[in-house]
Amino acid sequence: MKHGTAKTEAFLRLCAVLVLLLTACLVGFDSQTKYVIFIYRKATFRDLKALLVLVYVVSVAAGYNLLQLGKCSKSAWYKENLGSNIYVAWLCFLLDQVAVYVTFGANSAALEASVLAIKGAQEFQWMKLCNKYTRFCFQIGGALACGYVACILMAWISLISAFNLFRLYSPKQFLLLKRRG
Amino acid sequence: MKHGTAKTEAFLRLCAVLVLLLTACLVGFDSQTKYVIFIYRKATFRDLKALLVLVYVVSVAAGYNLLQLGKCSKSAWYKENLGSNIYVAWLCFLLDQVAVYVTFGANSAALEASVLAIKGAQEFQWMKLCNKYTRFCFQIGGALACGYVACILMAWISLISAFNLFRLYSPKQFLLLKRRG
Repeated sequence: MKHGTAKTEAFLRLCAVLVLLLTACLVGFDSQTKYVIFIYRKATFRDLKALLVLVYVVSVAAGYNLLQLGKCSKSAWYKENLGSNIYVAWLCFLLDQVAVYVTFGANSAALEASVLAIKGAQEFQWMKLCNKYTRFCFQIGGALACGYVACILMAWISLISAFNLFRLYSPKQFLLLKRRG
Repeated sequence: MKHGTAKTEAFLRLCAVLVLLLTACLVGFDSQTKYVIFIYRKATFRDLKALLVLVYVVSVAAGYNLLQLGKCSKSAWYKENLGSNIYVAWLCFLLDQVAVYVTFGANSAALEASVLAIKGAQEFQWMKLCNKYTRFCFQIGGALACGYVACILMAWISLISAFNLFRLYSPKQFLLLKRRG
């Protein structure tokens, strides 16, 4: 059971790393040059702060999951129960939670910025942009979809972390119940 | 211990409901009229889709937490261990998770839209707006801060839900360990 959980976690983390890297690459290498009003203008992810932040956040999240993956595989090799250290389990749990929330928040912010770029905001005289840079926008859309897949994977991982953490409290809880009954 | 957790949860949910309602009111009743280019223009939260979505999401989250609060207080009154039903615990846990993620996502999207309204985007010729509607923007800023406080409270609640859920698995886990050793 324990070994099974560790394997599942390692697999999920590997998937998360790959999807996060895919997201970073899709956003980072997205560019389109268009001839607009007498000049060539190149659209990149640097034009929109939200996309820049997304690339950084996603890269850091991928690095973090890679580190955790190293820990997982080590644990599987040596068959050591590293998770039995309560401080390590709490740290992993909290870091996993922070990672998933930060990634989700950055993704949602980028989504909002993209929706504004697609629809514009008439009241503010913010014009639409995606009718000009169509291919660019489609690639960003794909990247955001990947980002949400990564968030779901990371939420799943944080659920496993929570399980691994609160399971450690079970003997204490059991003793409490025993004292009561 | 059980009673203490239920009390803490009820208190946190009450706080979350109040903070969520405060957020909804701060955004919903925010308006500022200014004389801009020969016409009076009124800025409301309806001008920006992200703020409209935030008001709806926050209201629904407040309603959800109020319902859960009813369940908590009922549980505290009758001293029934409603949480012992594993399906109810899973449902509560998943709903809490969904609530906190959706609220956090909506808040982050509104934050990104607000940052764009403050800073503008020169590359896109999206102009700044908060130099005109200063008081309006400050109130939205306060609302977003409240929204993040609510997210932290709800994340704490979902942690308690996770504890309540995975604690139910502890006897099984204990039995597994017993069979192993």
